[in-house]
Amino acid sequence: MKSEVKLLGAWPSPFVMRVRIALNMKSVEYEFLEERLESKSQLLLQSNPIYKKIPVLIHKDKPLSESLIILQYVDDVWSSHSSILPSDPYDRAIARFWAAYIDEKWYPTMRSIRGAEGIEEKKRLIEEVKEGLALLEDVFKNSSKGKAFYGGDQLGLLDIALGGFLGWLRVTEVANGVKLLDQGNTPELVKWAQRFCAHDAVKHVMPQTEKLIEFAKTLKR
Amino acid sequence: MKSEVKLLGAWPSPFVMRVRIALNMKSVEYEFLEERLESKSQLLLQSNPIYKKIPVLIHKDKPLSESLIILQYVDDVWSSHSSILPSDPYDRAIARFWAAYIDEKWYPTMRSIRGAEGIEEKKRLIEEVKEGLALLEDVFKNSSKGKAFYGGDQLGLLDIALGGFLGWLRVTEVANGVKLLDQGNTPELVKWAQRFCAHDAVKHVMPQTEKLIEFAKTLKR
Repeated sequence: MKSEVKLLGAWPSPFVMRVRIALNMKSVEYEFLEERLESKSQLLLQSNPIYKKIPVLIHKDKPLSESLIILQYVDDVWSSHSSILPSDPYDRAIARFWAAYIDEKWYPTMRSIRGAEGIEEKKRLIEEVKEGLALLEDVFKNSSKGKAFYGGDQLGLLDIALGGFLGWLRVTEVANGVKLLDQGNTPELVKWAQRFCAHDAVKHVMPQTEKLIEFAKTLKR
Repeated sequence: MKSEVKLLGAWPSPFVMRVRIALNMKSVEYEFLEERLESKSQLLLQSNPIYKKIPVLIHKDKPLSESLIILQYVDDVWSSHSSILPSDPYDRAIARFWAAYIDEKWYPTMRSIRGAEGIEEKKRLIEEVKEGLALLEDVFKNSSKGKAFYGGDQLGLLDIALGGFLGWLRVTEVANGVKLLDQGNTPELVKWAQRFCAHDAVKHVMPQTEKLIEFAKTLKR
């Protein structure tokens, strides 16, 4: 039988991981089509002609791209399961705001550490990433309302948005001999990260740090 | 009486205009607090400490920033009026995708024309903006389904996202002696733009081109 849900992705991609977690949360079966960076498939080029990037979700032959948009789509379509977006409009807006912050500010800073010129620049970027995590620790305290996740009892948009980067955060820690997510700066996030990685929807799609480190060696700076 | 809805903005900002259009569509009364670029108010700095940018919507003392996020909030909160987001999940995702394209690709390209170095670079950017508009013409044909707006009979997310830039598009046309939105390349968008500017929710907040040109002279390249 032809699969109703296909995901074009690659295992090391944090953006693809987000979609896999959402589909797992919603108990949606899907066919995972592994893309290779060096030769993109015709299906990918047709499905995302604007950006030619993964992830692409194909649902009933209709393609969608951009991970945060896909997450909201998954939440809309499989709405009978636990919600990814908060039900309160203000909480929902705040979750969208911080998810965008993670993608547009925090992650690009962490990503740029690898190519940084000189030790001073690297140090500055590392400090900036840590400041961002301290902010996200405060957001966690406000959003979780004393519960396990940003989304409360269940994973929500912010859990998935930030959690997808945990593997690459660890790679960055190892590569630079620093602790970014540490007990002193972000005690709540340290515990949150453990809970996140142990979650049923996450544990089978979170790549091992060693495997990511090997993969990272194949990348350009 | 203290106003329940406040908007921190500035009249020339296309992002602020978006929020005003959405509030007008929903018949929401609001207090408009004009910010000055050169000296940001304490209220702005407190309300949007991350980006320190307008627009900020303050609803019942709770602040929100980022125009596309505010539009979705307005749609969620004043949900009894005509919807800004499409009701179908796929259409909703597609509207979000193209709204993000406008903000992350199309507008930054148009914005960069002013500071472009050399005639060749300027020409290249102008061509890119026109190609983007041709794409958005196709999106219009698919989204409007033969009706007046991207959102169908009513303004939707994409109408507001693109329409907010029409004033600055005209400024760019005048400053460079070119037609970006033209009959040959984008006949449907030309008609759409006329309908958009004449809409009740828009006509009182769309700045005059001459006034914008005067304002543009005060800006740095």
